[in-house]
Amino acid sequence: MNEFNFINSYLNNHQSVQHPEVVLGIGDDAAIVRPRLGYDWCFSTDMLIANRHFFAHEHPANIAHKILAVNLSDMAAMGATPRWILLSAALPELNLSWLDELTQTLFHLAQQHQVMLIGGDTTRGSLAFNITIAGELPANQALRRNQAKPDDDIWVSGQIGLAAAALQHHFKQIMLPDAILQTCENALLRPQPRVALGQALLPFAHAAIDISDGLLQDISHILDASCVGAVLHYENIPTLPYLKQLLPEAVLQKMVLAGGDDYELLFTAPKAHRHDIIEAAQRTNTPVSRIGTIHSQSNKCLCLDAQQQPILLTQKGYDHFA
Amino acid sequence: MNEFNFINSYLNNHQSVQHPEVVLGIGDDAAIVRPRLGYDWCFSTDMLIANRHFFAHEHPANIAHKILAVNLSDMAAMGATPRWILLSAALPELNLSWLDELTQTLFHLAQQHQVMLIGGDTTRGSLAFNITIAGELPANQALRRNQAKPDDDIWVSGQIGLAAAALQHHFKQIMLPDAILQTCENALLRPQPRVALGQALLPFAHAAIDISDGLLQDISHILDASCVGAVLHYENIPTLPYLKQLLPEAVLQKMVLAGGDDYELLFTAPKAHRHDIIEAAQRTNTPVSRIGTIHSQSNKCLCLDAQQQPILLTQKGYDHFA
Repeated sequence: MNEFNFINSYLNNHQSVQHPEVVLGIGDDAAIVRPRLGYDWCFSTDMLIANRHFFAHEHPANIAHKILAVNLSDMAAMGATPRWILLSAALPELNLSWLDELTQTLFHLAQQHQVMLIGGDTTRGSLAFNITIAGELPANQALRRNQAKPDDDIWVSGQIGLAAAALQHHFKQIMLPDAILQTCENALLRPQPRVALGQALLPFAHAAIDISDGLLQDISHILDASCVGAVLHYENIPTLPYLKQLLPEAVLQKMVLAGGDDYELLFTAPKAHRHDIIEAAQRTNTPVSRIGTIHSQSNKCLCLDAQQQPILLTQKGYDHFA
Repeated sequence: MNEFNFINSYLNNHQSVQHPEVVLGIGDDAAIVRPRLGYDWCFSTDMLIANRHFFAHEHPANIAHKILAVNLSDMAAMGATPRWILLSAALPELNLSWLDELTQTLFHLAQQHQVMLIGGDTTRGSLAFNITIAGELPANQALRRNQAKPDDDIWVSGQIGLAAAALQHHFKQIMLPDAILQTCENALLRPQPRVALGQALLPFAHAAIDISDGLLQDISHILDASCVGAVLHYENIPTLPYLKQLLPEAVLQKMVLAGGDDYELLFTAPKAHRHDIIEAAQRTNTPVSRIGTIHSQSNKCLCLDAQQQPILLTQKGYDHFA
C-alpha cells in the first residue's frame, strides 16, 4: 500500500461525519468550505511530537485521542464549536494495524464532536502529528484572553494536577497505587476537552484559556493580555483528594500550579453571573470551582495557601525551550 | 528567550500584512476570522521535514521560501487567492539569528502574496514545519481535479525537471556545470508558486494540479478523478534546453516525467480557450506549453516520444512510503 492508497482508504473512507458546508473534502489540492452567514471562524494549530507530547510506545488509540483532544480544547477555550480539522502525519513506517487503531479512535472522537476531517498530509519521518482545527463562533462572542476585568471571579473546570501526577509516576518521582494511577493516567492520556462548557459560557464569561502548560503560566497569559492581576486560593483549586493524603504539600502544589497537560478551562466571569456559571456547568455535566479573584494590579498573581501565606514556585509551567 | 517571547517577537511583530477580516491574530487560544460573503474557502496542509523535503543544512532563507511556496502552490492549483497561514515549527534549538533569517524570508514571500500569519505553534524537536494555508475563491469556481473533459488540451506552466536535475547533481548521479546548476538549484530551492496564473485560469480551465510528486503521477490524479485518459507528447514538455544536450535521453525523461518538486501547474482546458489561456499566461507573466490531449479512455496515460513511440517508465513519481 502506498501513500495515496493510504490516504484514500484510511482518511477518506473511515469518517461518518459529513457537513453540507464542505463543498469538497479530501482528495484535491485543497478542500473547499462555504462559510455560514453570521459566524466567525476560529483557527488553531498544534504540532505533537513523539516522546515530547506523547510516548511513541503509547497505544495508538491514546495517541489519537490526545492529538485531537488538545485541539478541541483550544476551540473550547474560545467558546467555539469545532467543525473541521486538517491532519498531517509523519510516520516511520506504514503499519496498517497501528494506523487502523489510530484512525478508528480519531474518527470516534471527531464524530462525538461532529468534527469532519477535510484535509491531510502524510510523509515518512519520526512520529509526529500536526492538527489544524477550525471552529465556528457567533460573530463577536469569543472568549478572549484580554477580556478579564477587576473583581471577576476566577473559575476552573475539572480537577487539576492529575496528568502531572501520572507523568511523575512514570518518571519514578512518585509512586501511585494502581487505582489512583489509572485515574491520573486517564487524565493524561484521555483528556476531555470542555467544548460544551466553553460554548455554554459564551454569554457569561469574560476571558478563558485552557490549561496546557501549567495553571500559573496559563493564567499569566490572561493577566498579561487583560492588564490585570489575580489572587488565587490554593485550597480551592480542585485536585484528586487522594493526592493530598499521599504527597508532600510542596510536591502536590507544583503539580497543581505548574504541572500542565490538564486541558481544563480556566475562565473569569463577573460575580453577578455566579448562578449562571453553575447552571451552565450543570447543564454541560462539567464540574467547576471558583478559585480566586481578578484585581486591577497589573500582571501580579498571588497564590495563597490555607494560612493565607503566598506560595512561591520557581517554575510556573512548561517551557518547550527552557 | 523562552517559547512565549519567541512567538511574540518573531511571529507576531515581523509581519506587515494585516487583513480587516482578521478579528484576532496570533496570541490567543485561536485566531478569529470573519468570512467575506460570496467566497468559498480553500484549505490545505503540508508537513515538511528536514532532509526529506529540504536539507537541514540549507540556508534558512531557502527553507522558509520552500515551506511557504509549496503551500501557495496548492492554492494556485485551485485557482484560489491565498489569504492566511498557520505555521507549526519543531526546532532543535532556539538559534535566534537562524530564526531571524527564516522569518524574514517567510514574511517577505507572505507579503508578496498578501498572506497573513494568523497562528502558530513552536516546540523543541527534530527540524520540521507544518503550514496550513487558507485561500478565498469565488463560490463554485475552483479548478478541481475531477473536471477534465475528453478533447481538453493539457497544459503545463514553466519548465519541468530542473529541480530533479539539481537533486541528481547533489546525489552525484549527474554533473552540471555551475551556471546550469544555479538555474536548477533555483528551481529546487526557490520554486515560484503560480498563484496569479491559477487565478487567471478560473474562467477557462477545467482541471488543475500542481506538480509536486512527478508529472506522470500528478496527472494520474486528474485522470483518476475525472475518469478520463491522456496522450502526452514528450517533445512538447518544456525543460531546460541545455539538459537535452547534456543528459542521456532516458535520464532526462525520468527527471521530466517523474522527478517532481517542480511546483508548476498542470491543467486542462477546452480547445476553444487556447487563445484565452495564452493571454492569461502573458498577463501573469507565466510561460505555458500545450503538452497533450485528454481522451475518454479511462485512466490510461500514454506519453509518446518524437518518433510517436510510447515512453515506458517503471516509476511515475515520488512515493513517500515506497
